Amino acid sequence: MGKRIFSGMRPTGRLHLGHLAGALTNWVKLQDDNECFYCIVDWHALMSDYADSSKIKSNCKEVFLDWLAAGLDPEKATIFIQSHVPYHTELHLALSMVTPLGWLERNPTYKDQILNIQNKDLSTYAFLGYPVLMAADILLYKGEAVPVGEDQTAHLELTREIARRFNNFYGDIFPEPEGLFTETPKVPGTDGRKMSKSYGNSIDIADEPEVIWEKLRTMMTDPARERRKDPGDPAKCPVWDLHKVFNKNAAEKESLAEGCRTAGIGCVECKKSLYGHVMTLLEPIQQRRAYYETHGDEVTDILREGAKVAKEVAAKTMSEVVEAIGFVER
Amino acid sequence: MGKRIFSGMRPTGRLHLGHLAGALTNWVKLQDDNECFYCIVDWHALMSDYADSSKIKSNCKEVFLDWLAAGLDPEKATIFIQSHVPYHTELHLALSMVTPLGWLERNPTYKDQILNIQNKDLSTYAFLGYPVLMAADILLYKGEAVPVGEDQTAHLELTREIARRFNNFYGDIFPEPEGLFTETPKVPGTDGRKMSKSYGNSIDIADEPEVIWEKLRTMMTDPARERRKDPGDPAKCPVWDLHKVFNKNAAEKESLAEGCRTAGIGCVECKKSLYGHVMTLLEPIQQRRAYYETHGDEVTDILREGAKVAKEVAAKTMSEVVEAIGFVER
Repeated sequence: MGKRIFSGMRPTGRLHLGHLAGALTNWVKLQDDNECFYCIVDWHALMSDYADSSKIKSNCKEVFLDWLAAGLDPEKATIFIQSHVPYHTELHLALSMVTPLGWLERNPTYKDQILNIQNKDLSTYAFLGYPVLMAADILLYKGEAVPVGEDQTAHLELTREIARRFNNFYGDIFPEPEGLFTETPKVPGTDGRKMSKSYGNSIDIADEPEVIWEKLRTMMTDPARERRKDPGDPAKCPVWDLHKVFNKNAAEKESLAEGCRTAGIGCVECKKSLYGHVMTLLEPIQQRRAYYETHGDEVTDILREGAKVAKEVAAKTMSEVVEAIGFVER
Repeated sequence: MGKRIFSGMRPTGRLHLGHLAGALTNWVKLQDDNECFYCIVDWHALMSDYADSSKIKSNCKEVFLDWLAAGLDPEKATIFIQSHVPYHTELHLALSMVTPLGWLERNPTYKDQILNIQNKDLSTYAFLGYPVLMAADILLYKGEAVPVGEDQTAHLELTREIARRFNNFYGDIFPEPEGLFTETPKVPGTDGRKMSKSYGNSIDIADEPEVIWEKLRTMMTDPARERRKDPGDPAKCPVWDLHKVFNKNAAEKESLAEGCRTAGIGCVECKKSLYGHVMTLLEPIQQRRAYYETHGDEVTDILREGAKVAKEVAAKTMSEVVEAIGFVER
């Protein structure tokens, strides 16, 4: 059945339309024809939030609800939390044995984050090893393919190099995972910048319809269109970028763009149309979320079952690893 | 019952008289009145031997036989192999979250080893974290006291600092382990330098009596005593250093020293006496070793039982750790 696919997400709290269009929609598709492992990587979250870990638990729960709501299906994919499968930490240590310090110190993402993230102290031993734990996540399930965005290319290349070096010492244990690059649509937030929780510009999957409308209603548009009678340019309008992602009606889109360029319609009309398309997408998702919010035991069962399946696969890999290294039989 | 004590030893192969007099004799005493965890740290061995791990398994088995032979008693102490208890790797990752990179980079032992060990490539991510794994070993069992030699003082201080920093973030989980400094006797090898496997000058616990005699017979003495009639100086003789450790007969020692100084006895006579004392010590040890060598199943059972007990204690600590961090309940 297709490929062994691994993908992880840090628990940053409620997910937004950017996560939905950029990752989850793709993940939902992949689970039909592949053997998918979807993992909430809470140890990775701790790397940046160790000084205040108080939100990790609720963030994990929100992400898990959003995943189930978006259509990740425990009958089709293995969905679990990283810290529930202790083998991640064991493979992390094993891989760290063969990972040259220089590979991590020279990792461009690392250098970039150390320079740019000012409000958190990231100069810890764990954070330097971020890509080693990521490699362990993927290789523990012998992931063959990993859906990644452009920004993860360097990390995935490190995973491949670590796998190659491990195999070189201990035999052919790990496949070298390939990147599954899917076109990631541009999803701007309400202020026109990339949608991101940290910018405070996001429209969350779990937002109430009225909240979503309020966010869209006050969303930034083409700055040149100051008054209703000014013509606009869709190419300069973040609302239009969202239409491109969430409005599947080509004829309507053509008519809206034309109306904008000629000042034939106002921005509110265009936003109302967008709201309709977003809600058409979100309604079944929000219904599923509401179901799981009130069925906590079922969610816990799904988590436990996911961890159980993941552990079985992981235990098998670690047996091979430990035997290849040559430790005394357990 | 006394204190919770942890001590670990890297599996370097058959142990010698230096290990016996420097560590094991003390460990055997401690197990009577304390709750002792004695651990063969094979992950630590892998840090330096990752490029050729082929000897780790047999080295672990030799060390374990020597431990049982020396009198470590599975009825009194928990004796096990580090990699058999996966929680070590889990706590290692947890502690690495709060360990500043600078603490490890500035660790004098690390800098010293990177400079001086030329035949192995130690510039890996794992090796930089050596003290973090050591801290995990000790703290996993909430060790209150650790028998350490002078050379381990810096590492134990790091363990205390890591424990303090973890407690500071997540609450009072770990005791800060104290060093149990016992006087370590000087045990020279056959060439007069410190007894060490890597110098090829060691007298092993498991050496055949004839081998031991041959090593003692040809052992270096006071270089000034070239001929039988030359007087010697015990203070300059490594054989005399071994008498000080292994000969408990004060009157005989006095007479041997006098005989050396006056050329009243020859070196062979002095060495024969030493041989007698060493063999008096080693005979019951070698008998126990011979027993366990031919009872492999019993050894395996002891290892399994040790791992089982260690796992129970470790699991309890990790539950506390994971709850304190605030991960989603497993």
